[in-house]
Amino acid sequence: MILCDIGNSTLDWYINGIRSKQRIMDFNPSEHTEQIYYISVNSKLSSVLKAYDNWCDIANLVDWNKYYPTMGIDRVMVCEAISEGVIVDAGSAITVDVMHDGHYKGGFIALGLKSAQEAYAKLSPALSESFNFEVDLTIMAKNTPDAITVGFLAPLIDKINSLGKPVYVTGGDSVVLSQLLCDAIVDDLLVFKGMIKLIEKGQLC
Amino acid sequence: MILCDIGNSTLDWYINGIRSKQRIMDFNPSEHTEQIYYISVNSKLSSVLKAYDNWCDIANLVDWNKYYPTMGIDRVMVCEAISEGVIVDAGSAITVDVMHDGHYKGGFIALGLKSAQEAYAKLSPALSESFNFEVDLTIMAKNTPDAITVGFLAPLIDKINSLGKPVYVTGGDSVVLSQLLCDAIVDDLLVFKGMIKLIEKGQLC
Repeated sequence: MILCDIGNSTLDWYINGIRSKQRIMDFNPSEHTEQIYYISVNSKLSSVLKAYDNWCDIANLVDWNKYYPTMGIDRVMVCEAISEGVIVDAGSAITVDVMHDGHYKGGFIALGLKSAQEAYAKLSPALSESFNFEVDLTIMAKNTPDAITVGFLAPLIDKINSLGKPVYVTGGDSVVLSQLLCDAIVDDLLVFKGMIKLIEKGQLC
Repeated sequence: MILCDIGNSTLDWYINGIRSKQRIMDFNPSEHTEQIYYISVNSKLSSVLKAYDNWCDIANLVDWNKYYPTMGIDRVMVCEAISEGVIVDAGSAITVDVMHDGHYKGGFIALGLKSAQEAYAKLSPALSESFNFEVDLTIMAKNTPDAITVGFLAPLIDKINSLGKPVYVTGGDSVVLSQLLCDAIVDDLLVFKGMIKLIEKGQLC
């Protein structure tokens, strides 16, 4: 089975269990003749792919009554992968979503680690510090790097832990963030696992 | 008594109980002959004021062993105003500090409301939404404006409430933020109250 997660600058392929990246500028859909299942946040490329019968948009297999219309398709996929738990996708934004017995219970969107650090730096040169991932998030800070780290991460981590469900973490910052969460499971294939689940239970293209 | 809180673009005066603002560009220190107590985050102007005997820098009255060297002087002042409680200064950043029995217990720095919304907007046009201050922060969101509001505010508000002390809120976004906090007291004069306390107990210049 060939899966493809299409972003704005790269394609993330998952072909028979092997993952690889490709730049959009190096991509030509007509080079592929096999059946390919994809999701896309790239509206321009999505329009192009509609002309190809072998490219199947997984968004058409989603029961959108479970979610909301403007919810990102990546977020829907990681939710589809898990029937019970909190799913944290730590990328440019950090999305946190709750699934209960296969039903979507809602979620929220925090800033990503890089985005938050850039926003602090923009406020003042004094706040242009890297987060200190060694800090104890349970205590109040007494220096600037710890104060911004605790200020951004402690409320977020407390909130995720308070949801009282198993936590699954995926995305580029999954390892860093999982170290701060209680018993979190890192799984960087969640988006593809969600796609596979939908393909298996849904109508094929 | 004449107090002045000097920022990078404005001076915030407090003269015999009356508050007024002045642009830095309209300010000439030699026009003032009275004794003036000030704090300043404007290092250029601070250097100029050292030449004037009637301008007394309150930072010199602070017992810096209680705080940390890079802590903003505005933050120190609002802490000096309160001997027991959590002080939230909701400005360009949101600083949260804990005082217990007159001792500083540490704190943290979150992004300000405007700064956070700008950071979301920078991530994606889809996240370029205003916060919805009517949202119920205790439940997970099912639309984009609520998802970013809950994502930024719910963890922060929960964290502040969890500190288990009376909450005092000051700064430009004090009213908006106080409405989300349990029994918070809005006091936009905290910085001046801290200055007065230090002047009364400290060495005069």
